[in-house]
Amino acid sequence: MTDRAAKIRLFVEAPLQAGAEVPLSQPQAHYLFSVMRREAGDAALVFNGRDGEWLAEIVRAGRRAGALVCRERTRAQERPADLELLFAPVKKARTDFIVEKAAELGAARAVPVFTRFTNAERVRPERLQAIAIEAAEQCGRTSVMQVAAPRRLDELLDGWDPARRIMFCDERMTAPSAAAALAEAGPGPWAALIGPEGGFAEDEARRLRQMPCVVPVTLGPRILRADTAAAAALTLWQSVLGDWR
Amino acid sequence: MTDRAAKIRLFVEAPLQAGAEVPLSQPQAHYLFSVMRREAGDAALVFNGRDGEWLAEIVRAGRRAGALVCRERTRAQERPADLELLFAPVKKARTDFIVEKAAELGAARAVPVFTRFTNAERVRPERLQAIAIEAAEQCGRTSVMQVAAPRRLDELLDGWDPARRIMFCDERMTAPSAAAALAEAGPGPWAALIGPEGGFAEDEARRLRQMPCVVPVTLGPRILRADTAAAAALTLWQSVLGDWR
Repeated sequence: MTDRAAKIRLFVEAPLQAGAEVPLSQPQAHYLFSVMRREAGDAALVFNGRDGEWLAEIVRAGRRAGALVCRERTRAQERPADLELLFAPVKKARTDFIVEKAAELGAARAVPVFTRFTNAERVRPERLQAIAIEAAEQCGRTSVMQVAAPRRLDELLDGWDPARRIMFCDERMTAPSAAAALAEAGPGPWAALIGPEGGFAEDEARRLRQMPCVVPVTLGPRILRADTAAAAALTLWQSVLGDWR
Repeated sequence: MTDRAAKIRLFVEAPLQAGAEVPLSQPQAHYLFSVMRREAGDAALVFNGRDGEWLAEIVRAGRRAGALVCRERTRAQERPADLELLFAPVKKARTDFIVEKAAELGAARAVPVFTRFTNAERVRPERLQAIAIEAAEQCGRTSVMQVAAPRRLDELLDGWDPARRIMFCDERMTAPSAAAALAEAGPGPWAALIGPEGGFAEDEARRLRQMPCVVPVTLGPRILRADTAAAAALTLWQSVLGDWR
């Protein structure tokens, strides 16, 4: 098996164990063989979100299909932190960015949330899921962030599990600083909630502040764009309560 | 003076004081009068990076020119934290993003740095400066992040002021966590250094680790893209040592 310098890392659906054959999708075969010029005998890393990461050998390489065989497990399966990102979709490029960053920053799940002032085109969860998979391939996760179907904020809060705290990224400077508030609240299941560029409606913010599981936090004195706020909130969560400690 | 709901905020060059007339650039006049449909008598906020923020009244509105007059100072001039971002340029959209995020996250200065493995097209500092100005208008800064001319990493380090600490975002997981390392190192002039997607060359990393002013930090167990790493590093700096405390 030829071990090229820049190892390609692919998310696959098939079960992974020693000797298991892993079929490639048509886009994966195109990428691996036509774009990256890999061939039979070359190595790649594969993961499926369940069985860890495996070093695999290309055993068939065609223009539209191909297969690898798992040779050796390189990493155990990790479980991501129990951290969700609830985000109001914004413009397409910035929404893509939010999903990519949430995946890189180790969130388990991202939920597009329509708030009163959300002013976005239709959200396509399959497209966002593909971005989350690509980010997992790139950043070395063995898990894939799940992108949920869009929800309305009021409906989401109606059925909210009170055991899951909500880091509510409030735009009012009166909320405590995020790092201090997270440290005081402590570990457990969490969600970070990021509003749309127009902010939350007053009644939405009031309802959130009245829920006992909600932890209002401020992200500094400047008005952050939604994508910046999402990256900052997840960074601080990982730093205080997650795997950056 | 008519006070419309969504206040427009403009960066201008002119000195600002009560009664001072502020000429608009052609793109500003186009934006204010043709795009946003503002007219004489309407209000806008202006700042120039030196004299704080002023509520100003439109006194002349033409298709390609116009002027405002300062009425009332709304905010004192702030000085940004003495924090620089040194970043290896990446692809265009991601480089733009790095600059926008650095401005929103309150950096004083951004310096494009060419490292050994930097693989980027030409950098245009004027274009990046325009992005930093737009971000300042949007996020409410009264200062503007300065975008410096690109430098080579080795030359930059040759003339480095040892009083300015460098938060070196090392990809090795052996470095201490960023929040802990920053808290231990404490306040003062700082720079955050983000490498290119290919990482630093071994001799670059060795040189950095040998400099007494360099504080190596890790940004968690996943491989972050350069734009994510920049946003995360500045977020943690502001949270531990800056104006998010």
